[in-house]
Amino acid sequence: MTQSVDQKASAAASATNEWLTAFQKALTARDADAAAALFADESYWRDIVSFTWNITTVEGGAGVADLLRATLDDVDPVGFRVTEEPTEEDGVITAWIAFETKAGRGSGLLRLVGGKAFTLLTTLDELKGHEEPINDRRPNGVRHGAFRDRVTWAESRAREATELGYTVQPEVLIVGGGQGGIALGARLRQLGVPALIVERNERPGDSWRKRYKSLALHDPVWYDHLPYLPFPANWPVFSPKDKIGDWLEMYTKVMELNYWGSTACKSAVREGDGWVVVVDRAGEEITLRPRQLVLALGASGLPNVPEFPGREKFRGDQHHSSAHPGPDKYKGKKAVVIGSNNSAHDICAALWEAGADVTMVQRSSTHVVRSDSLMDLGLSDLYSERAVAAGMTTFKADTIFASLPFRILHTLQIPVYNAIRERDAEFYHRLEQAGFVLDFGEDDSGLFLKYLRRGSGYYIDVGASELVANGDVKLAEGQVVELTEDEVVLDDGTRLPADLVVYATGYGSMNQLASDIIGQDMADKAGKVWGLGSGTTKDPGPWEGELRNMWKPTAQEGLWFHGGNLALSRYYSHYLALQLKARMEGIPTPVYKRAEVYHTE
Amino acid sequence: MTQSVDQKASAAASATNEWLTAFQKALTARDADAAAALFADESYWRDIVSFTWNITTVEGGAGVADLLRATLDDVDPVGFRVTEEPTEEDGVITAWIAFETKAGRGSGLLRLVGGKAFTLLTTLDELKGHEEPINDRRPNGVRHGAFRDRVTWAESRAREATELGYTVQPEVLIVGGGQGGIALGARLRQLGVPALIVERNERPGDSWRKRYKSLALHDPVWYDHLPYLPFPANWPVFSPKDKIGDWLEMYTKVMELNYWGSTACKSAVREGDGWVVVVDRAGEEITLRPRQLVLALGASGLPNVPEFPGREKFRGDQHHSSAHPGPDKYKGKKAVVIGSNNSAHDICAALWEAGADVTMVQRSSTHVVRSDSLMDLGLSDLYSERAVAAGMTTFKADTIFASLPFRILHTLQIPVYNAIRERDAEFYHRLEQAGFVLDFGEDDSGLFLKYLRRGSGYYIDVGASELVANGDVKLAEGQVVELTEDEVVLDDGTRLPADLVVYATGYGSMNQLASDIIGQDMADKAGKVWGLGSGTTKDPGPWEGELRNMWKPTAQEGLWFHGGNLALSRYYSHYLALQLKARMEGIPTPVYKRAEVYHTE
Repeated sequence: MTQSVDQKASAAASATNEWLTAFQKALTARDADAAAALFADESYWRDIVSFTWNITTVEGGAGVADLLRATLDDVDPVGFRVTEEPTEEDGVITAWIAFETKAGRGSGLLRLVGGKAFTLLTTLDELKGHEEPINDRRPNGVRHGAFRDRVTWAESRAREATELGYTVQPEVLIVGGGQGGIALGARLRQLGVPALIVERNERPGDSWRKRYKSLALHDPVWYDHLPYLPFPANWPVFSPKDKIGDWLEMYTKVMELNYWGSTACKSAVREGDGWVVVVDRAGEEITLRPRQLVLALGASGLPNVPEFPGREKFRGDQHHSSAHPGPDKYKGKKAVVIGSNNSAHDICAALWEAGADVTMVQRSSTHVVRSDSLMDLGLSDLYSERAVAAGMTTFKADTIFASLPFRILHTLQIPVYNAIRERDAEFYHRLEQAGFVLDFGEDDSGLFLKYLRRGSGYYIDVGASELVANGDVKLAEGQVVELTEDEVVLDDGTRLPADLVVYATGYGSMNQLASDIIGQDMADKAGKVWGLGSGTTKDPGPWEGELRNMWKPTAQEGLWFHGGNLALSRYYSHYLALQLKARMEGIPTPVYKRAEVYHTE
Repeated sequence: MTQSVDQKASAAASATNEWLTAFQKALTARDADAAAALFADESYWRDIVSFTWNITTVEGGAGVADLLRATLDDVDPVGFRVTEEPTEEDGVITAWIAFETKAGRGSGLLRLVGGKAFTLLTTLDELKGHEEPINDRRPNGVRHGAFRDRVTWAESRAREATELGYTVQPEVLIVGGGQGGIALGARLRQLGVPALIVERNERPGDSWRKRYKSLALHDPVWYDHLPYLPFPANWPVFSPKDKIGDWLEMYTKVMELNYWGSTACKSAVREGDGWVVVVDRAGEEITLRPRQLVLALGASGLPNVPEFPGREKFRGDQHHSSAHPGPDKYKGKKAVVIGSNNSAHDICAALWEAGADVTMVQRSSTHVVRSDSLMDLGLSDLYSERAVAAGMTTFKADTIFASLPFRILHTLQIPVYNAIRERDAEFYHRLEQAGFVLDFGEDDSGLFLKYLRRGSGYYIDVGASELVANGDVKLAEGQVVELTEDEVVLDDGTRLPADLVVYATGYGSMNQLASDIIGQDMADKAGKVWGLGSGTTKDPGPWEGELRNMWKPTAQEGLWFHGGNLALSRYYSHYLALQLKARMEGIPTPVYKRAEVYHTE
C-alpha cells in the first residue's frame, strides 16, 4: 500500500517536472506555440499580474500562445519549479509552483490531466527590490545606538499625520474605509506606498456598528482573516457586528494606516497623470492630489429604490434597507419588507424579534442556503478548523479557490449544491410549502456563483427562514404596483397595511455609486463593476472571463476598484497593491488586453 | 546515514516508551519508590499545577517519592505517553509527553540520560469540563435562529460593564493593568472566570506611553507575544513604547477585558473567604468584593531612593528613574545619573541625545550584554525567525525553557555568556578602558540568571554603552556621600556639578509595594517576591527552587502575585488562571508544600 502511494507520488512528480521543464524550455526559447501545445484543448491559464499586469484568464492553446507572444520578452520568465511534492487524485495532478520574472517573483498552482495542463494559475508574489519587510525582514523598530537626530516612532507617526494630505500628497487615495479600504491600506503600507484612506463615517468599523443590532458576519472566521493579522484562536465563528467593528478599528491603528474618518469625498477630477480630489474632512474642505485613485465603496453600490407610484403619499416610515435604523421603534407595528434576499431576511427577522408584525414581499425567486450547510459542504475543505488542522493555510485556500477557472466554476459547484439540496430537503420543502419561491441559481450552481455574477439574489440562512417557513413572518408574492397612504398594493390586488416599508431592493453597480465623485462620464467610461458576463440575470454577456473592473486596470488610467467579501478583499488587495507599487516605482507595467467595457451599469 | 538517523530515532522511541511504561505502572500501583527509582541521582521534576497545585521542583529520587506519596491518590495520573517522536542528542533523549489526571489533562517534557529521568516537566493544560472555547471549540458568536429575547454581543458587553464591580462582584480582582494583568485577564476570560482589572493610569498601555521617548522593548518580538493573539508578521523586532502601548490597548479591547483605568487601589482587607477592596475610580470610591486578589504591579516594585545626606539642600531637579519625565528640558544642563543598570543607561543615552551634559555614577558592577548578541546567542534557538521557520512554536519554546531546572540553569548559561564575552571582546575591552566595572553575574552565568535572581544589575545594550566607552557619557565610580546645593559628592572626594540628579537606584520587592494596599503585616506575611534563593547579591538563601511567590499559592490564602517579562507573563498566566478557575469551580486543589517565607523584602 505504502509503495503504491509512493509510486503515485513519484509519477506525479515526474510528470510535473517533465511538463515544467518543457514549459520553461519553450518560454526561454520564446516559442509560444510550443508552450501552447502543452495545454489541453480545454484549458485555462489565469494570470494575476505576473505576466499580464492584469487579472486575466486565457483559454486553450490559442489563448496561451497569444498571451505569451504579447508578454514573453518583457516578462522573461525563468525558474519554473515545484515548491512541494505534487499530488495526484482521480487523474488530476496538482502542483504548487514558483518562478521568477524580470520584475518579480511569482508562484501558482498547476493542474495536469493526461500530461497536459488543464489549469494554470500564476500570481505575482513580490517585486524584486521591493520585498515586504515581513518575517525575517521585519523592521527593527528602533534605531539602536545613540543619535542626536533621533526621531521616534511616535514622532514619525505624528509627523505623518500632520503632513499627509496637506504638505505631502499620498501616492494612493482610497475612497472608502470599510474592510476593503483597510485591507488595501495595510498592503500598501507594507510596500512603502504612501496611502490615505478617507471614510465618511467617523471611526473605522462604523459601517458595521451602525447596522441593526442582531447583525453578524455570515461568513465563518477562517474565511474572514485580514492580511497579516488573522483573527485569534478564541475569535467566534461569526463575528457580531460590533466585534468586527472593534477589530477593524484596532487593525487600522496597529497597522498604522492613515485614515481620515468623518471625511466625505466630494469630487475627483483627472489632472495630468494624477487626480485632484476634493474632500470634506469634518467640515474642512481639503484638496488632495493622489496619483492613483482607488474606489472601495463597498460591494453594495448605489441603493436601488424602485419608483413605485404613491411613494409620496405613504404616511408611514419608508427607507431602503441600507438606511434601516433597526427594529426598535416598530414593536407592535406593521412592517412590510419589499424583497427576499439577504437584507430582507435579516431585517424581517430583526423586526420579528422586536415584536413587529412582519410581511415579506417576494418579487422574484431567491436562493437560500443554510449557514451550517454552506460551512460544512461549501467551505470546510478550505476554510475551517478541520482544514487548518490538516495543514491548510489561508493563503493556500485562497490560491486554490483563485485557481478554479470562472468558466467552469459552476460545474464544480453544482454537485455541492445538489448535496446541500439533499441534506436540507426537509427545510426546503417547508419553505416551499409556505409559498416561498426558491432557486439554486439559474444553472443550480448555487450561492457563490450568484455572488460572483450579480452579488445578490440569495440569503445565507441564519434563522429568518424558519420564521418564513412557520408563518411568523408572513409572505406575499408578486410585484408592487403602488403605495397608498397606509398600504402596499400588489399586482394581484393584495393590500398590505403598513406602518413601515423597507425597500430591500438591492443596489446598483459601484461605478454608478462612484458617479457622484468621478462624474457620470467617467463612471460610464469605467463601466459596470462586478459580474462575469455569464448571461444570467443581472449579469449580461458577453463573457468577461474575470470580474468586471475589480482589482485591475480599468478604462480610466489611474482609477481602480477594490472590494469583495473579506476573503476576496484579503487575497486581491495584495495584487492590487503590487500594481500600484510598480507604478510608483516606475516599473514598466504593460497591460495585456485590458478588459473592454460592454455595460455602464 | 539515513539508517543511522532512523536507528537513533527508534532507540530513543523505545527507551522513552520503556521509561513511560514503567513510570505509569508505578503510578498506577501507587508505588512512589518504584517511580523514584526511575530518576537519576541528580534529577529534577518540575510540576506546574498538574500534580501539586503549585509550581514546584523536587530533586532526586527522594524528592520524587515524597511528591508522589503526597499527591498520587488525589491526582490519579494516567495515560503517560509521547506526543511526537522523541529525539536524541549527545546522550540525552528529549520527549514531549502528555497525560491525564483526575481533574485535567497535562503535557510536558522529559529528558532521559542512561535510561533514567534527568529532568521531567509536567504542566496542567486544561481542566476537564472546563476546556477553553478555542479553535474547534471557539464560540459561535451569534445565536443563529430567531429569538424574541435576543441579547446581542454588544448588549451583553454593555451590561457587563454596568454590572461588574457594582451589582455583580468579580471572582478575581487584578490590581495592575500592565501587560501582566492584561495577559492574565485574557486567560481568565477564556476560562469563564469573571475578572476585573484596575489600573491607575487612564488607558491600557499608558505605563509605556508615559516613559521617555526613545524607549523601546529590549526583548525581540518572538519572545514577546501575548496569549492567543501573537504580534503579526510585519511587527518590528523591538516595539517602540507607543506602539506596544497601542497593542496593549487594542488587545484589552478585542479580548473583551473588563478594565478600569484611572483607578487606584486604596486598600484590600481579608474578609471571610474573600476580600474587601476599596478603589478610587476616577474620583469615585467603590468597594469590590472579589474572592481572589492578584497583584500584578510590575516587576519593578517600590522605587528605592537612597537617603543621601543633603538631598533636601539640592536645588536642581531630582527624582527616581521611574519618575523621570524624559530629557527634553535638560539640553545644555548638567545631569548626574546615580546607577549603572538598565534605567541608568537608557536615561543617560536619552539625556545625551537631547544635548545634556551627562555623568553616570557607577556604584557597583554591572553586567552588560549587547542586544544583538543576546538575540543571536541567547535566544535564537527558541525565539527568532529562524526558530519559527524551523518549526518552533512559542508554546514549545516556553516549555523548553520552563523545563530547565533552576538549580542547574546557570551551568547551561555559562557557555552562552562565555561565547558572548568572546564575540564582543573588543566592545567589553573599550568599556573597561573607559573605567566601567563589568561583571557577567557572580558565577558568570549572565543576564537571565541575574534577572531571575534579582531582577536587576544588568543592561541590555541598545546604544548607551558606546557613549560610555567613548566618553560622551562621563563615568564616575564610587559611592555617593552627600548632595550639596548643586553637586553630587562621591566618597573619593569627586564633586559632580548637577542641575539634575536621577536616582536610577532600583526597586524593592513587589510585596513591599503592595503594603500600601494589603498592609504591612500581610505584605510581610506573604514575603519577598521574586528571586531564587541563590545566595548571590540581593537573592539571599536558602534555596527556594522556584521564583518566590510568583504565579502560585502564597502564605496568604486568596492572595496571588502575577508578573514577569512578556514571555514569563504569557506562559505563567495560563497556569495561574487554571488555579483560579479550579478554586472558582470548587475543584479540590490540595497544595503540595506551599513555599515557606524566609524573607520579607
